[in-house]
Amino acid sequence: MADVVVVSNRGPLSFRLDASGRPEPAGSGGGLAASFHRLLAGTGATWVFAPMGEADRLAAAEGLMLEDGLRLVTVPLDADTYRMAYDVVSNASLWYCHHHLFDLPRRPRFDRHWREAWDAYRRLNRAFADAVAGAAAEGSVVLVQDYHLSLTGRMLAEARPDLATVHFSHTPFAGPDMLRVLPSDVAGELLAGMAGFGCCGFHTRRWEAAFRDCYADPELAGSARPLVAPPTFHSPLGPDPEAVLEEAAAAECDSAAEGLSASIGDRLAIVRVDRIELSKNILRGLHAFDELLERRPRWRGRVVLVALAYPSREGLADYLAYRSEVEHTVSRINERWATGDWTPILLDLADDRARSVAALRHYDVLLVNPVRDGLNLVAKEGALANRNDGVLVISREAGAWAELHPAALGVNPFDVTATADALDAALAMDAAERARRAGELRRLVAGRTAADWLADLLGAADRLSLAGR
Amino acid sequence: MADVVVVSNRGPLSFRLDASGRPEPAGSGGGLAASFHRLLAGTGATWVFAPMGEADRLAAAEGLMLEDGLRLVTVPLDADTYRMAYDVVSNASLWYCHHHLFDLPRRPRFDRHWREAWDAYRRLNRAFADAVAGAAAEGSVVLVQDYHLSLTGRMLAEARPDLATVHFSHTPFAGPDMLRVLPSDVAGELLAGMAGFGCCGFHTRRWEAAFRDCYADPELAGSARPLVAPPTFHSPLGPDPEAVLEEAAAAECDSAAEGLSASIGDRLAIVRVDRIELSKNILRGLHAFDELLERRPRWRGRVVLVALAYPSREGLADYLAYRSEVEHTVSRINERWATGDWTPILLDLADDRARSVAALRHYDVLLVNPVRDGLNLVAKEGALANRNDGVLVISREAGAWAELHPAALGVNPFDVTATADALDAALAMDAAERARRAGELRRLVAGRTAADWLADLLGAADRLSLAGR
Repeated sequence: MADVVVVSNRGPLSFRLDASGRPEPAGSGGGLAASFHRLLAGTGATWVFAPMGEADRLAAAEGLMLEDGLRLVTVPLDADTYRMAYDVVSNASLWYCHHHLFDLPRRPRFDRHWREAWDAYRRLNRAFADAVAGAAAEGSVVLVQDYHLSLTGRMLAEARPDLATVHFSHTPFAGPDMLRVLPSDVAGELLAGMAGFGCCGFHTRRWEAAFRDCYADPELAGSARPLVAPPTFHSPLGPDPEAVLEEAAAAECDSAAEGLSASIGDRLAIVRVDRIELSKNILRGLHAFDELLERRPRWRGRVVLVALAYPSREGLADYLAYRSEVEHTVSRINERWATGDWTPILLDLADDRARSVAALRHYDVLLVNPVRDGLNLVAKEGALANRNDGVLVISREAGAWAELHPAALGVNPFDVTATADALDAALAMDAAERARRAGELRRLVAGRTAADWLADLLGAADRLSLAGR
Repeated sequence: MADVVVVSNRGPLSFRLDASGRPEPAGSGGGLAASFHRLLAGTGATWVFAPMGEADRLAAAEGLMLEDGLRLVTVPLDADTYRMAYDVVSNASLWYCHHHLFDLPRRPRFDRHWREAWDAYRRLNRAFADAVAGAAAEGSVVLVQDYHLSLTGRMLAEARPDLATVHFSHTPFAGPDMLRVLPSDVAGELLAGMAGFGCCGFHTRRWEAAFRDCYADPELAGSARPLVAPPTFHSPLGPDPEAVLEEAAAAECDSAAEGLSASIGDRLAIVRVDRIELSKNILRGLHAFDELLERRPRWRGRVVLVALAYPSREGLADYLAYRSEVEHTVSRINERWATGDWTPILLDLADDRARSVAALRHYDVLLVNPVRDGLNLVAKEGALANRNDGVLVISREAGAWAELHPAALGVNPFDVTATADALDAALAMDAAERARRAGELRRLVAGRTAADWLADLLGAADRLSLAGR
């Protein structure tokens, strides 16, 4: 097998300085990075990433190899460049664009300040491309992750045509109407950057089609010498089933589960687990629960909504505002319905993985209702961790819907009334039907793991190498 | 020619009660209605519309024929039904949907209250369909205008299969991603309603394609027995050139022009004329002017932005908020740049047609930068009324861009920097180039009038009749 280089914004681990000022691992990079790390253990792969602090930088500068043989390479970036590229372009522009989160009458506003951030995004992509070009052996397979690094495809194609580069989008991809919102030259540069990859992967056929549609739009791809879409594929990520089951069986999960059970009592539990994130649609989920209690009085006092929502991106004003809207809405609904011994919504903003997994173990209904979501791994982890034949209510705008719909209840995430109806149906479902669906859900999820996904990426890279890249 | 029935939300005239309590014409219905009225004079057509008040109702109840032989039929609607259908569904949902105006993380929120409004929208459409069915002679041509009446197609197909029904959308049409935001059954009902028309027309190929794409999406059109798109066509509306030239030559326009000239002096004038409307992108236009003054100091003191923006839909909180954002932004920019003898922005919120036409006569640059717009008739009226070889700067998201781009400067409406650059280029353009472009613009606009548009609608209806509808 060719050497493998993984390239992503975050590294597999974060580091801190120990008492003697030397870097030591301080925890997992979380999410994607964690499952990637596990998959790559023992492969001798290289991981190129942006250091989150001095300890990360030191760890990589020392040529630190992790115990499992993973080599770390950090990308030298000044703090201003990183902040502008990450906050202003990646998070507040490209993330919004791919998730259709803009309030278009007012935002985005691409002005001269934004242009400086775009220059920073270019510099960041250039620095990543240079680091990869310096670290990758002849003919390596390079797996570039996500929208932070859209421009590196073209840069690497020019600097290192020997590499087999594969980009994978963990987000949806904007449709042409939404990509046209970006400044025309920026949209063109982004598509040209992506076109430089050997191929581009997505979680679902739908995002893959949206990406290809952008190259078919003359306003975006040009008309004189139009950009041509690179080869594409779709391959949904799955969790690592062993890892999820281990987490669910861990002692700390047991004690978190005890605490949770004490709060819920013998009531039914609707659970949601998200970052506080505009795309996750937490507000409409709360309104749907409110409408459920309003229209279906029989659930009053008999069901609890456990909303685990840990803050993120609090550097963006929009996320702070969203958090306070969530808190305010929870208070209002609890004031409306609470009785002496029943609090309808338990909102917990702590970032506590054991508690999240405990809630997934416990749910009667798992609510996953994003307005738009590349995949949604929580839906899949929930299916594996749950011990209660719980029912999944999932947005049709989440990538995971494409795989899980035979066993789940689907909702239009903008439709509060339909979401309330789906929660009602899930709560009222008889035991046999619950068991049947939960079994089917586990089967679907277990049949498609993180290892399968990585194999698809490597297979796509192999085909490129065979084709002479 | 078959009898013609025009169906629209507003009638051709509004009425008031005279001293004896009898209805008398009180003015034009404005915009579309005014040009339609002129086109239909003498044809003996029938016009079915919603009465805006008691005088309208009385006028129609008396079987009032206008002097030009137009027969008026009003649709009986109770005020609550009308208000819910018009404000909540037509304006705050369908208009937003087709113009991509939703702030999706938060709005829309389709809850039980919205469902009541949707029922009202159905009742309104049913009442219109009943009124048409009652008023139309055998085999009539029925020209239904706009998104208020999407469901009447199917209703009329069932009740009166002898009619040749043509629907025309004066808005853009939502792409599939945005139409999917509507509750699934509602989106399906809407597409089924539209599929009932004999054919559906749009201002541009782009909106026509978006409409057809919705029927190609299995989530929207169903997969078992998918809805089939009706025949479609595109035909951009044009102004009535004579009417515009008459208005521009009228005495009241002369006196408005004098007032305007006194304010502008010998400075260059950038003009915009819009309703205060979220889709019109007034805020980014102001920011672009601010950035122009910032980055191109030579224009300070030498140019005035005349922003004529008359309030609309003030029953919607979002529109009131937008108005105050516009006023606040104008104040801020004026405070930043004004000198003793120069106020950079003249904002006028009066609804004064003569003043608007006077501004169109006068402009050096006409700024038309909507985020999304079915056509934009102001761009075309401006080309005809202008006497100054003024330059048109127009959004690529306006339908009129498709026709006028050879003679205009195009902008991405979200790109404040690019808009500032386009204003700069337009202000700096030499006289010969201005004259060449203005001539070309007049030629393009004059070559495509309201009469051509109506002929296309009637032609489409004829083809239906020939095909046996």
